[in-house]
Amino acid sequence: MAKFDSTLDRCFSALGDPTRRMILQRLTRGEASVSELAEPHDMALPSFMGHLRKLEDAGLVTSAKQGRTRICALTPDAFTPARDWLREQSDIWEGRLDRLDDYVTTLMKERRE
Amino acid sequence: MAKFDSTLDRCFSALGDPTRRMILQRLTRGEASVSELAEPHDMALPSFMGHLRKLEDAGLVTSAKQGRTRICALTPDAFTPARDWLREQSDIWEGRLDRLDDYVTTLMKERRE
Repeated sequence: MAKFDSTLDRCFSALGDPTRRMILQRLTRGEASVSELAEPHDMALPSFMGHLRKLEDAGLVTSAKQGRTRICALTPDAFTPARDWLREQSDIWEGRLDRLDDYVTTLMKERRE
Repeated sequence: MAKFDSTLDRCFSALGDPTRRMILQRLTRGEASVSELAEPHDMALPSFMGHLRKLEDAGLVTSAKQGRTRICALTPDAFTPARDWLREQSDIWEGRLDRLDDYVTTLMKERRE
């Protein structure tokens, strides 16, 4: 549980930055070298590498050296823990609203009778 | 776009903390006073209020005074922007894998013929 919690901490925190989300959006379309990924960002390379490291620490991105180039890829099922957590909360919330809806409907029916 | 981006920044950042996720998990089950929400957390009230403020800033939680009590509630559709972003990325990623799968299948079929 603690491990899963810390995965969610790192995953959601990593997603809370527009540069990092742009990197992920690029990688959903296929793997890319660090320099390809950095190109659209007006940012010093060490800062950019810091963002990449946060994505790797969060388990969202993997990277490997191919010759002199480092190639990055989206981790398979990268978004699953975050999506599962959000879906679970939404399901509970919507279930509660449905029950409230049923209750109000029953109440109104009883009043009419 | 900038506004939506900053909504996502604040939303994902707010979700990246276990105390804040616990508050949200409690509120999916129904509204609660600040003291009810704070009760399970071994934390000074000012720190706890800081977490609540981050959730309000992110648009995930609303609160209102009822007499001397402040009542908090989950914002309707609180998780929609985050869920939409994650679903969009997963759809692109899975679409890419499906196309890769089709390509490999076609290639193997051609080899056999």
